[in-house]
Amino acid sequence: MTIQRMETGPRMSQIVIHGDTVYLAGVVANEPADKSVAQQTKNILDTIDGYLAKAGSDKTKILSAQIFLADISTFADMNSEWDKWVPKGHTPARATTEAKLAAPPYKVEIMVVAAK
Amino acid sequence: MTIQRMETGPRMSQIVIHGDTVYLAGVVANEPADKSVAQQTKNILDTIDGYLAKAGSDKTKILSAQIFLADISTFADMNSEWDKWVPKGHTPARATTEAKLAAPPYKVEIMVVAAK
Amino acid sequence: MTIQRMETGPRMSQIVIHGDTVYLAGVVANEPADKSVAQQTKNILDTIDGYLAKAGSDKTKILSAQIFLADISTFADMNSEWDKWVPKGHTPARATTEAKLAAPPYKVEIMVVAAK
Repeated sequence: MTIQRMETGPRMSQIVIHGDTVYLAGVVANEPADKSVAQQTKNILDTIDGYLAKAGSDKTKILSAQIFLADISTFADMNSEWDKWVPKGHTPARATTEAKLAAPPYKVEIMVVAAK
Repeated sequence: MTIQRMETGPRMSQIVIHGDTVYLAGVVANEPADKSVAQQTKNILDTIDGYLAKAGSDKTKILSAQIFLADISTFADMNSEWDKWVPKGHTPARATTEAKLAAPPYKVEIMVVAAK
Repeated sequence: MTIQRMETGPRMSQIVIHGDTVYLAGVVANEPADKSVAQQTKNILDTIDGYLAKAGSDKTKILSAQIFLADISTFADMNSEWDKWVPKGHTPARATTEAKLAAPPYKVEIMVVAAK
């Protein structure tokens, strides 16, 4: 099976396609400072939509998602955006855990695996 | 490859099957209050057995497992149940890390990828 | 699709191959005591190279990597070794989060999925 990489930097690629499976990097918000958890989540989900489109996929084809929250008490705030975004009948397997992220302004990070 | 979802709610699916690969959601214990780490682990592994059966798989076909413990000092307690349950000669790749989980009563969460 | 397991112990396997996809366990450093984050990272990446070779893969075929740091403030130290190791043009999807690991001497753990 072929491997195709997109948005490839020296440290990581944002998109890696192996056969029919699409692996995205953990996505954080752009310009996170002063953005709420809900605002960061919405920004992340927009970015994921864009990456999936580049990969020839979309959010109805997400297989699995890992969500990291810098503060687990923001679970409901994150879900307020997730629940609006995730397509009914096509929801992925998911796990949400608390973890400090690469820099303090980041409150949410989401990493998904999708089908092409 | 086809995508099949089972135990699908508005936020996530417990089981997603993509071709020959089965993705389960992070599983936590039912009625976790007053259950020890070992008791929660046993309950989670029972649930995973059930989900794998629904997906046409079983615990001899688990490829990879991520285990999250709210308190890493309970590593041995979790393993006391894991080691009894996991089939010798068919053990998966595994990583165990500490992470606060969605609500305080949850002490363990396990997310697996299996073959069908 | 066939499942092949290597370096299989009673608790986990270090290498699980399912069709064209290779799942490695979370790898930590050998003899971690007194090793810096950079030293542990270099040791882990050497181990991953060895496991990928056993699986018939190599670091140009890594699809996705999860990196756990016991202290996220060591992010740059870990990357100092990662950036030297990861092959330009073949970088994987990646997420790095803070998590306490199975025992205090471990400062870094890396879990990868690769193509065969």
